[in-house]
Amino acid sequence: MENIENIPAMMAEMGAKAKAAAKQLAGANTAQKNKALTEAAISLRTSIPQLLDANAKDVAFGKDKGLSSAMIDRLLLDEDRIEAIATGLEAIAALPDPIGDVIAHWKQPNGLDFSRVRVPLGVIGVIYESRPNVTADAGALCLKAGNAVILRGGSESFHSSSCIHACLTEGLKAAGLPVNTVQLVPTRDRAAVGEMLAMSGVIDIIVPRGGRSLVGRVQAESRVPVFAHLEGICHIYVDAAADIKKAAAIILNSKMRRTGICGAAETVLIDAKIKDKIPSLIAPLLDAGCEIRGDKGVQAVDNRVIAATEADWTTEYLDAIISVKLVDGVEAAAKHIAKYSSGHTETILTEDAEAADYFLNTVDSAIVMHNASTQFADGGEFGMGAEIGIATGRIHARGPVGLEQLTSFKYQVRGTGQTRP
Amino acid sequence: MENIENIPAMMAEMGAKAKAAAKQLAGANTAQKNKALTEAAISLRTSIPQLLDANAKDVAFGKDKGLSSAMIDRLLLDEDRIEAIATGLEAIAALPDPIGDVIAHWKQPNGLDFSRVRVPLGVIGVIYESRPNVTADAGALCLKAGNAVILRGGSESFHSSSCIHACLTEGLKAAGLPVNTVQLVPTRDRAAVGEMLAMSGVIDIIVPRGGRSLVGRVQAESRVPVFAHLEGICHIYVDAAADIKKAAAIILNSKMRRTGICGAAETVLIDAKIKDKIPSLIAPLLDAGCEIRGDKGVQAVDNRVIAATEADWTTEYLDAIISVKLVDGVEAAAKHIAKYSSGHTETILTEDAEAADYFLNTVDSAIVMHNASTQFADGGEFGMGAEIGIATGRIHARGPVGLEQLTSFKYQVRGTGQTRP
Repeated sequence: MENIENIPAMMAEMGAKAKAAAKQLAGANTAQKNKALTEAAISLRTSIPQLLDANAKDVAFGKDKGLSSAMIDRLLLDEDRIEAIATGLEAIAALPDPIGDVIAHWKQPNGLDFSRVRVPLGVIGVIYESRPNVTADAGALCLKAGNAVILRGGSESFHSSSCIHACLTEGLKAAGLPVNTVQLVPTRDRAAVGEMLAMSGVIDIIVPRGGRSLVGRVQAESRVPVFAHLEGICHIYVDAAADIKKAAAIILNSKMRRTGICGAAETVLIDAKIKDKIPSLIAPLLDAGCEIRGDKGVQAVDNRVIAATEADWTTEYLDAIISVKLVDGVEAAAKHIAKYSSGHTETILTEDAEAADYFLNTVDSAIVMHNASTQFADGGEFGMGAEIGIATGRIHARGPVGLEQLTSFKYQVRGTGQTRP
Repeated sequence: MENIENIPAMMAEMGAKAKAAAKQLAGANTAQKNKALTEAAISLRTSIPQLLDANAKDVAFGKDKGLSSAMIDRLLLDEDRIEAIATGLEAIAALPDPIGDVIAHWKQPNGLDFSRVRVPLGVIGVIYESRPNVTADAGALCLKAGNAVILRGGSESFHSSSCIHACLTEGLKAAGLPVNTVQLVPTRDRAAVGEMLAMSGVIDIIVPRGGRSLVGRVQAESRVPVFAHLEGICHIYVDAAADIKKAAAIILNSKMRRTGICGAAETVLIDAKIKDKIPSLIAPLLDAGCEIRGDKGVQAVDNRVIAATEADWTTEYLDAIISVKLVDGVEAAAKHIAKYSSGHTETILTEDAEAADYFLNTVDSAIVMHNASTQFADGGEFGMGAEIGIATGRIHARGPVGLEQLTSFKYQVRGTGQTRP
């Protein structure tokens, strides 16, 4: 299956199959969709030997290619990880089905009765890197929201993803749903990605999952609308009226709980009025082994701080490094954020309700927080159950992209014979 | 102003100005936005002589160009039409401001408080044809929703649109809002349209308003998401359980109230079980001068029916012509619609609640109706106050595009010191 001569023809065929599957799937009931997911989980558990074999091939390929040990770890499957993937499918089955929900309902004076009803989006394209679990997670979320999906996984996880995809197909068959609901591009050829990005009119939304270079390419080239964030340069602003103990704990958590996720904080802005509190605010970070890069004002207060350069305000470290800067109050903080933020998540730490309101209303990012860690920027933490990613665009989905964001809607209008005057 | 040498540079500058204006406008309050609109209305009324002069130039240009009398009529302004434009601005001022609305609000067990709050979309691009009133309508709707807008009007209405735009600018000045909130492309050069369609990252949404060729070009070329419908091939299905008198009235209204709008019906599907009712169903249409093109079954029943060809099922007549076909029940009707509809608006006429439910749930168009005229497919009739158009896409806006559809949202998360475990 791996060497395909005519990639455009193959992708066009996959697109047509996806559209046909999406049409059938729109009429599927919740029980059927859930059965497909729980049967896929069973299939995963009974396929552990095949999955481990397939994964071993991928790992050997990755080592030959000289992947870093971090990348090999992302690629690696073991029994625990396979069980986690299966459990993830069951968790998505357990989520409420958004399709058919009446989002709004009203009547007009002429008696016409209007409902805005949730329907599937259609066909989703997911382009991802080496984590094989995305095959299951993304496939399952799209299916639960009534969509067909075309998955294009990373070349390193080719065999693992194919094996997980086969389990999803088993689930679909067991539930009597079209097997083309979840398709995996059966080639490592990168030309398939270019085709997907050009399939407007067939694919309704592209979701890239991976590093900056993948997302950047997709955003630059796609003719199809994209749900994504390029990077997460998340800010913490410590107001003069902050509770310093609370603030120090939130700063530590925002940066160090996990440094490699998009909701990790990269810059702390501190009101110059409380510059004497800098040592207390950054001590937990330093104790945890975090490097601090500060402007002159911050350096003057604490000699453990390394000098920051302009590049530090635009860098997503994804590591135990954070930049710190003094600003003149909440308005200056909002201005810095407007200039440097990637529009993902920002938080203000203060006991002053007025400053908090100003920040929450003025800062134009997908998620703005008050007295909470930026690491809550996650669909699960929002109560959405699961997410396919976080979007910083302004169209359709913004913030965590969960089941609801993978749907569209239509209007049902009920009359009793009304004609328009 | 009309001959610009460097269109790309000019459009880039307009884009930068629009982005800056959008940032300022996001903080504007409702009273300021309303003042800009009501002052623009006053300015329009005091500019009647200048508007009539400008319009006379456009009409002369249009006649030289050989425009049809229908197109000249669309272009024409008189005192009544100018008053209607001014009243339209005041009506938009009177609409509730969507910005700041809390769309959803919930708490998580850890005490975090989540609000989904409506914010402006950003920068809208509107590309339209010769109707000069669109300058005011589209500009005002975008402004009321807190957006900056770049308007590109038809070359025939160049002077009229420029004059109306000047009145909007007066309103913005009087309200202390950035004059670049509403910009009009100051050239007839069509290269400006190509630039707009490529301005992803600057323009958030393109709204084309005009005929099929304009919308088709925009949909095919745009790198920016588009809110539009290419055509409105709207269907009426007359079920065996229809009230024939009611049905005949709705058919007449759906086609003949106004034949030139996108919500006008183009095809009537009739359950073969009631083919003997065809004469009663189509008599009002024939009396009103409508041409009927039917399949063999329909022709067999009524000899006033002309033979339909395959092309009739895919034609948006926008005229006093309608196609009629016999189908075997609601499922066959849904299948015909899935194959031929443009996804705009369809209606079922029946007294059978089950058939109605099947139709409303199965037919995948932006608007599906029961016992109501397709001509209700209009933002005003939906109670949205005003609309910038109707969208058949599935992303962000579907159906009438009113103020709410011209907004985005963000999440405000309020905590009391929460860190993520």
